[in-house]
Amino acid sequence: MAGGRSRNRKKTLSRQKSADIWIYGHHAVLAAINNPNRETKRVLQATSSQFDGTLYNSIANVKMEVVSSNQLESILPSGAVHQGIAALVKELPSVTLDEICTQARTKRRGVVVILDQVTDPRNLGSIIRSAAVFGALAVIVQERNSPKINGVIAKAASGGVEKVSVVRVTNITRAIEKLKLNGFWCVGLESQGANEIDSFMPQNLTAIALGGEGAGLRRLVKENCDELIKIKGNGPISSLNVSNAAAVALFALTKKITK
Amino acid sequence: MAGGRSRNRKKTLSRQKSADIWIYGHHAVLAAINNPNRETKRVLQATSSQFDGTLYNSIANVKMEVVSSNQLESILPSGAVHQGIAALVKELPSVTLDEICTQARTKRRGVVVILDQVTDPRNLGSIIRSAAVFGALAVIVQERNSPKINGVIAKAASGGVEKVSVVRVTNITRAIEKLKLNGFWCVGLESQGANEIDSFMPQNLTAIALGGEGAGLRRLVKENCDELIKIKGNGPISSLNVSNAAAVALFALTKKITK
Repeated sequence: MAGGRSRNRKKTLSRQKSADIWIYGHHAVLAAINNPNRETKRVLQATSSQFDGTLYNSIANVKMEVVSSNQLESILPSGAVHQGIAALVKELPSVTLDEICTQARTKRRGVVVILDQVTDPRNLGSIIRSAAVFGALAVIVQERNSPKINGVIAKAASGGVEKVSVVRVTNITRAIEKLKLNGFWCVGLESQGANEIDSFMPQNLTAIALGGEGAGLRRLVKENCDELIKIKGNGPISSLNVSNAAAVALFALTKKITK
Repeated sequence: MAGGRSRNRKKTLSRQKSADIWIYGHHAVLAAINNPNRETKRVLQATSSQFDGTLYNSIANVKMEVVSSNQLESILPSGAVHQGIAALVKELPSVTLDEICTQARTKRRGVVVILDQVTDPRNLGSIIRSAAVFGALAVIVQERNSPKINGVIAKAASGGVEKVSVVRVTNITRAIEKLKLNGFWCVGLESQGANEIDSFMPQNLTAIALGGEGAGLRRLVKENCDELIKIKGNGPISSLNVSNAAAVALFALTKKITK
């Protein structure tokens, strides 16, 4: 829980600054290279890979370095499904909640996703991917308890981290307060929610808060939501995986808002 | 990768027949122990775990063995989030597609999920969990290309493997043919689908086919579906993670069928 822990990030085998990350897998790497806000430093292709590197070479300023699979794997997390491609990129510039609120005022409709203590990188990545599919304005996470964007998250997001702003805030409850002041209706997704998501009519600006694996939304976060809603199935298990719950919520709400 | 010492411990702790699997995590273990069709052989609790073991002791025929965290971890996959609990259980008896068709004829309404080459265990587990949440009759997978139910899948399914039949078939296309003969309308989820899932009116018996990560549905599988539908967002990325797509499809279709 200590704030200092995140500063103690493990050093990788590769020579890189702390603000650089290795991204891997086709969708993630291609999206990163094509993101004008993202600085790409190196692109590595494994000799054993089956794909056509010209796809990458045709992108301006990208020079592929051909390396062995072993070399590629030595810089990536164990078991990473890299598909023979990895890129060393700079972290994206941070985006503030104020900037998202300004965007929302201009667009006048949209959804943001608030994640309260979602710590699993694959879940976080999948949620960012779904946020990109359904055109969400941002995914808001708490600075202290959320993993920073890394290769695992970028892979699971399948390019989504280049398309949706991930906003890191110090306090989720205060973020909800700010969103409400900026015209967002904040709904918490909770098994105890009063209404089913399907009968809920979202406002043009809606924030959806989801709790972490296991614990759900924290009390203060719940209390600060305008309303609690639930996804109700009729089967023998009551709760979805958090990334699946986010996908269902984004599907159910965005179709009512963003048309 | 494993050092000799941990390999030895692994041997003594996990002397098991091939049809036995280690399941871990609270939801997965509790659901397994409470499943009358599941034979539980051993239940291990880590000394360091914070939870109240009486929850387990109160279940008939369950004797907790207290072990060290290291011992528990030596028998589980590296990085397993075991929450201090694991159980050695027998594989569930297999369920045939004919049995599911018989159930479907009795119930006269329901959904089955068909997975074409979904190989990632966490995705498979999440889909089984969502199938349990939305009351699906079964999840159908291809014998040859799907991982057998293991601890990773059971953990991701959060008890779902005890609630939803996972049917292993030799051929997905033939399974679709059989489902159609038994009154199921088979829809394939595909980005090229003609209709959006929301405007699709499912039959009382509906089978939803989803393709594996990356490749999607294979040609023959697609051709054998009655209809292809899509989940369409309005964002910059077009495709959801397969488990998220399954959750959205189950949400969208079961509410129209199983009420």
